[in-house]
Amino acid sequence: MVSSATREVVIGTDRPFVVIGERINPTGRKMLAAEMKEGDYRRVEADALAQVSAGAHMLDVNAGIPLADEPAILAEAVRLVQSLVDVPLSIDSSIVEALEAGLSVYEGKALVNSVTGEEERLERVLPLVAKHGAAVVAISNDETGISEDPDVRFEVAAKIVHRASDHGIPPQDVVVDPLVMPVGAMRYAGVQVFHILRRLRDELGVNSTCGASNISFGLPNRRGINSAFLAMAMANGLTSAITNPLEQEIVHAVKAADVLTGNDRDCASWIRTFRDPSTANGGDRARRRRRGRRRTGTEPPRPAP
Amino acid sequence: MVSSATREVVIGTDRPFVVIGERINPTGRKMLAAEMKEGDYRRVEADALAQVSAGAHMLDVNAGIPLADEPAILAEAVRLVQSLVDVPLSIDSSIVEALEAGLSVYEGKALVNSVTGEEERLERVLPLVAKHGAAVVAISNDETGISEDPDVRFEVAAKIVHRASDHGIPPQDVVVDPLVMPVGAMRYAGVQVFHILRRLRDELGVNSTCGASNISFGLPNRRGINSAFLAMAMANGLTSAITNPLEQEIVHAVKAADVLTGNDRDCASWIRTFRDPSTANGGDRARRRRRGRRRTGTEPPRPAP
Repeated sequence: MVSSATREVVIGTDRPFVVIGERINPTGRKMLAAEMKEGDYRRVEADALAQVSAGAHMLDVNAGIPLADEPAILAEAVRLVQSLVDVPLSIDSSIVEALEAGLSVYEGKALVNSVTGEEERLERVLPLVAKHGAAVVAISNDETGISEDPDVRFEVAAKIVHRASDHGIPPQDVVVDPLVMPVGAMRYAGVQVFHILRRLRDELGVNSTCGASNISFGLPNRRGINSAFLAMAMANGLTSAITNPLEQEIVHAVKAADVLTGNDRDCASWIRTFRDPSTANGGDRARRRRRGRRRTGTEPPRPAP
Repeated sequence: MVSSATREVVIGTDRPFVVIGERINPTGRKMLAAEMKEGDYRRVEADALAQVSAGAHMLDVNAGIPLADEPAILAEAVRLVQSLVDVPLSIDSSIVEALEAGLSVYEGKALVNSVTGEEERLERVLPLVAKHGAAVVAISNDETGISEDPDVRFEVAAKIVHRASDHGIPPQDVVVDPLVMPVGAMRYAGVQVFHILRRLRDELGVNSTCGASNISFGLPNRRGINSAFLAMAMANGLTSAITNPLEQEIVHAVKAADVLTGNDRDCASWIRTFRDPSTANGGDRARRRRRGRRRTGTEPPRPAP
C-alpha cells in the first residue's frame, strides 16, 4: 500500500494493475528540463493533471537535470504535484539527497524509486525508506551491472528484499523492477522478464514494476509492442508499471489484461469504459467503421459436443 | 507440421504464432449458411482470399448447417478453398462423416478439427486421422462435459495425446484446445487457460490452439479483450489460434507477441509491417496524430546507476 494525504493505492496480484505515470521526467525532454531548472513548473502541472485524467493510479516524479539543484527541484515538484492531484507518488532519483528532499515534503506513504543491489545504495537508501515508512522500488542490478542471466537478476532482487527486512522494511513494501531491456537488441529480453516476474510472484511473493517503454526502444510502432508487453507481463505476475497513460492503447491493454487476470470484478471497469460503443476505439472513427462492419464473432462459446 | 499441396506450416513454441482464420463457418452467420446450403460459395471464396491476404497462415473450414448434407458441402468447400489459396486447412466438423469427406478431397497434410476425450469420438476420429496422416485438434472435454478444474482439462488432453499415440499419431501431430470460456461469465476463465497452456507446453510438450473469440463473449469492445488474451496466452505457450485475421488489432497483437516471445527473429516481420509510420495505427489517423504528438519514451534503457 502507498498513499497520498487522502488516497490509498494497493498494489497486489489480486488487485487491478497499477499504472504509474512516467511523464514527469526531464530525461530526454529538453524543454521540460530547461523549464524545471528555471522554476517553471507549468508543464509539470499539465502532465500531472493529464496523466491522472487518463487513468494513472500513481505518478512518478523525477527531476534528473544535469548541473541543476536536483534535491530542491524534486522537492518543489513533489509539493506542487501533491497540491494538484491526490494520487500517491513515486519519488524518483538516483541521488540520495534528492530522494531525501522529496520524502521530507511528501504527505502520505510514498514509493521511493529506487534502490539497487549495490552495497552503497542499500546502506544509504534503505535507512531513509525505513525512517519515512515508505515503500521502495528494488532494481535488480548490483556492482557487476545488469546480468543477462534472469536468475542472477532474481537473486539480486531476493538479496534486496532480505536486506530491506533487516532494516525493518517488510517484503510487501518492496516492489521489484526486473529491468526491461530493448527486445530489438536482445531477442529474449521479453522472455527473460516474464521468467523473473513468475519467480518474483511465486517464490518471493513480492510486487513488481518496470519501465515498460524500454522494451520497444528502437522499434517502429512502439505503442503496439508496449501494449502487448504489458499484457504478457501481467499474465506472468507484473503488478504495476511506470508507463505512459496518455497512450490510449496502453491503458486499454492494461484494462483488458485486468479482465483476463480476473482482477476487474464482474468486468465492471471494462464495461464502464466501453459500454458506449463510440468510445471503443476512439470516437468517430470507431463509429464510422462499425457502421460498415459485418457482425462477427458473436456466437456463444463452443459447447461440449 | 501441416501442409497444402504446395506449402508447409510448422506450429511450434520456437516458431512465429500460427493464425488460423475462423471466418469460413456458417455458425451464427445465417446468410452464409443459406448460401452454402444452396451451393453458392462466393462468400466462402471471398472469405478465403480476404483472410489469407490479412495474414492468416491457415484457414479453418466448417460447414455445420442444420438439415444440410454437411459431408458434401464440407468436401466442396475444402476443394474450392484449396483451389484458391495455398495455406493448409483445418477441416472442422463435429460429424465424423464430414471430416472423412473433407479429408478424402484434401491435398496435403490437414489439421482435423476435432477429437474430444469421449470414447466414441476417440475411436472414430483417431483412426481416420491416422489413415490420412493428418494432425488433429484435441479438445479437452469428455463424457462428463467441460470441467471447471483446469487440471482435469489437462488430464483429458493428456489422455487424448496418449490414445493418439496408440493409433500411431505422434504427440507433435496433436494440437490441444484447452477450451476457452467467456471471462464475462467465469471470472478466472483466462487464468485457467493460461494455467493449462503452461502445463501443455512444459509437461506434455504439445502444441495448442483455441477459439480465441469465445473469451470476450458478451463484453463490449471484444477486439480489445481478444487481442490482450492472445498476447497473454502466447506468453504462456499458446502456439496457434482460430481467430479473425480481418480484425487488425488481433493480427498486430499476435505480431507484437511474436517479437516478445523471441520468435520474430531480428523483429524482421514487425519492422517490415510498421516501417512506414503511416501504417502503424491505421493510415491517416496515425499520421494526423503523430504530427501533433510530443516525442515521448525514446530514452535508452535505464542504465545501471
